[in-house]
Amino acid sequence: MREIDNEDELSRTFGALADPTRRAILAQLAKGEQTVNELAKPFLISLQAISKHLKVLERAGLITRGREAQWRPSRLEVAPLEDATDWIERYREIWRDRFDRLEQEIKRLQAEEADQEGDHRNG
Amino acid sequence: MREIDNEDELSRTFGALADPTRRAILAQLAKGEQTVNELAKPFLISLQAISKHLKVLERAGLITRGREAQWRPSRLEVAPLEDATDWIERYREIWRDRFDRLEQEIKRLQAEEADQEGDHRNG
Repeated sequence: MREIDNEDELSRTFGALADPTRRAILAQLAKGEQTVNELAKPFLISLQAISKHLKVLERAGLITRGREAQWRPSRLEVAPLEDATDWIERYREIWRDRFDRLEQEIKRLQAEEADQEGDHRNG
Repeated sequence: MREIDNEDELSRTFGALADPTRRAILAQLAKGEQTVNELAKPFLISLQAISKHLKVLERAGLITRGREAQWRPSRLEVAPLEDATDWIERYREIWRDRFDRLEQEIKRLQAEEADQEGDHRNG
């Protein structure tokens, strides 16, 4: 039996990425630091809504924010994303291994079948 | 101005991954098809809770389920995960490019400074 922590870092990272506005904000920040006002410009939503999204990103460790109360420029942090891709990649690897094994099993069965057909012809 | 679709596929994928039980279910399914009962075994939660998680995964396209009402084995689908890693990788690439440019700028400034020091010595 496994007990599960519902507020782990990986869940916070994936949760933060589960929103197109937040992903667009991260894409913006990949080009450099920006203030809330700069970040809000391309969107049809309020500054308050952008601030909420920034809080979610900050809690997930995907951004850090400057200290100056008025500007508080946001800067992206890439480490949580690395953990996220690591998780997906590990899982895709298990899946690929499984398919490799299935493929080998199919080849083995095909070889056996070919052998048996040979036996029938020779016998 | 950008209008944003709040129920896009990528958001559903990341949303489905934002839960440790669902990630554990996917890791199980990477080893092969399983029924709800088999999937529920390692967890301290009810079959109903597992069924709810499977619905979220199914809606995100991360699993498909068999037709037989009683068994309905779940099987994982890897395509949405590829889209998810593609998104993260694209974004990390912008970030890397930015740091490469910063590094070049720093080298350029250091070279300039070295030149000026040389000038001072020679002049």
